[in-house]
Amino acid sequence: MKLNKRNLQEQNDHIYDAVVVGGGAGGLSAGIYLQRYLLNTLIIDKGKARSLWMQELHNYLGLPPDTPGRELLKQGKEHYLSLNGDWLNAFVEDVTDAGDYFIVRVKIGRSNSVYHSFKTRYLVAASGVIDHLPQLENMQNVFDYAGYNLHVCLICDGYEVVDQRVGIFGASEASLGVAEPLSWFTRDIVLLTNGQFEVSPERKKSLADQGFELVETPIKQFLGENHQMTGVELENGSKVQLQAGLVSMGSRYHSDYLNGIDLDYKGGNLITDDMLRTSHPRIFAIGDLKVGMNQVIVAASDGAKAATQIWRDIRRVEGSRRAGKAIAA
Amino acid sequence: MKLNKRNLQEQNDHIYDAVVVGGGAGGLSAGIYLQRYLLNTLIIDKGKARSLWMQELHNYLGLPPDTPGRELLKQGKEHYLSLNGDWLNAFVEDVTDAGDYFIVRVKIGRSNSVYHSFKTRYLVAASGVIDHLPQLENMQNVFDYAGYNLHVCLICDGYEVVDQRVGIFGASEASLGVAEPLSWFTRDIVLLTNGQFEVSPERKKSLADQGFELVETPIKQFLGENHQMTGVELENGSKVQLQAGLVSMGSRYHSDYLNGIDLDYKGGNLITDDMLRTSHPRIFAIGDLKVGMNQVIVAASDGAKAATQIWRDIRRVEGSRRAGKAIAA
Repeated sequence: MKLNKRNLQEQNDHIYDAVVVGGGAGGLSAGIYLQRYLLNTLIIDKGKARSLWMQELHNYLGLPPDTPGRELLKQGKEHYLSLNGDWLNAFVEDVTDAGDYFIVRVKIGRSNSVYHSFKTRYLVAASGVIDHLPQLENMQNVFDYAGYNLHVCLICDGYEVVDQRVGIFGASEASLGVAEPLSWFTRDIVLLTNGQFEVSPERKKSLADQGFELVETPIKQFLGENHQMTGVELENGSKVQLQAGLVSMGSRYHSDYLNGIDLDYKGGNLITDDMLRTSHPRIFAIGDLKVGMNQVIVAASDGAKAATQIWRDIRRVEGSRRAGKAIAA
Repeated sequence: MKLNKRNLQEQNDHIYDAVVVGGGAGGLSAGIYLQRYLLNTLIIDKGKARSLWMQELHNYLGLPPDTPGRELLKQGKEHYLSLNGDWLNAFVEDVTDAGDYFIVRVKIGRSNSVYHSFKTRYLVAASGVIDHLPQLENMQNVFDYAGYNLHVCLICDGYEVVDQRVGIFGASEASLGVAEPLSWFTRDIVLLTNGQFEVSPERKKSLADQGFELVETPIKQFLGENHQMTGVELENGSKVQLQAGLVSMGSRYHSDYLNGIDLDYKGGNLITDDMLRTSHPRIFAIGDLKVGMNQVIVAASDGAKAATQIWRDIRRVEGSRRAGKAIAA
């Protein structure tokens, strides 16, 4: 059932088996499996899953390679709702461990916001990451190309830029290191600092030795039309022709709501076991938020594993299904 | 390119980057990723992937829940071939480790068979398992229902049999233990031994205490029509009404071709690391053949991980892409 400001109060005393934070590929797959295990699930989604930006999935088994990410999310959400899972569009503010259950506090609506708390036995952190993008004065100019031929994922899109002239948009000297794996796909590489950081003489020599260009002038705007980026115009008026771009500026991790709970991280990623359990026995982390490959198919698999382990946990304690449990028609 | 008896000889001196044994969900996903890493791949498929039997996938994110397994396989094969991967319908007889590469010997064609050997640097074992089924005089009678409402996977299909009267078809006393997780979905359970094994008095008491029925008479045939099994007729002429069945008779592991290589197993499953590498550095095992959950979405994720690790390995050694490498149009 889709929850909203009006029907929220019905849920006040309810304790969910699992609340899934994030309605992207990982969260939807977890939700589908959880509901099929007859576990009562709520997915809380703030919108803007990373895969929503992907114009073509390219490498997801079972879908034509030109399937947009939003199609996968739409199909998955329909699938989940058809299994009677609960869904709420909201932002998770924080999670408190109350011993037997968690209290998940959410903010609903950007304006005239309503706050509400849910109880749940298990928590699945599937809220992912979002890529930092070049910060230009007119951000619409960036959004026009991001996810088209301004890529953020080398594994996904290296194949799309074979032997093309590709600009790497970095955020630090270290972030330029992506040129090395990118050079498997193309040798025609231009590195752009957007005037945001210094590049050491050693790195400059190394880049030059490999035949890569370095552009340190700030960027004025991306050039192109119909979502196809053709290069950048620099602040000094000169232009750099490109056939594609790769943004290598790191990510923002959507895990602030977990700050009140002591969990093990590696960098910004949550550390989990084989079944995606974090260092807290009733918190699972799946998809881009955990240590591992940031791929849609991996996130979907993570969701299946986490849901299965949660079912095993609950079954071990309860033995058989609770009476009065909602059953599919 | 699809290989066959006629165009085989062109490949004689070629060393593939990776040969994938098995064209099921895991193998296809590996092949798609490998080709997108510009690695030269051959998938060898003997047909009859386990997912081919599945009439409805139910829990694969991105596909409607009534999608047949064969549709996923068809789409995946088209996807792989569109990336210029090689494909051969054949049976892998054995694999020999020649140091820098493996020699993969195959048998092509069931009659007038031709034998051929391929060379490859990496091997991906994606040949899976196949479920043992009740052995009746008329096996067509079993195949008529297997994959419809005669299920083989509790995780996949527990949801489909909620509160139904379900027959468990076992192969040993231990195999009857599946009644415990099945009882999460339904309490109306009949266990059938088909007269093939003894059940201890302790087990009988335990089953009776839980309200489960035990039928030890041999089975004559499944009853039903239009692929919907409605029960079984026993050799003594009596009938057992059922609404669904769950076969719990173990699996045959398709890994005989690896017998000449020393690898670590747990039961019939290959032990791998996080990136699906076996105890041999250039052999990966994915999907049902490795230790882990037997799910289509997991196998597909495994393929992505194994392919990525193989690419990382090869890139580390070679630095940049080989000249003359086939590039997508």
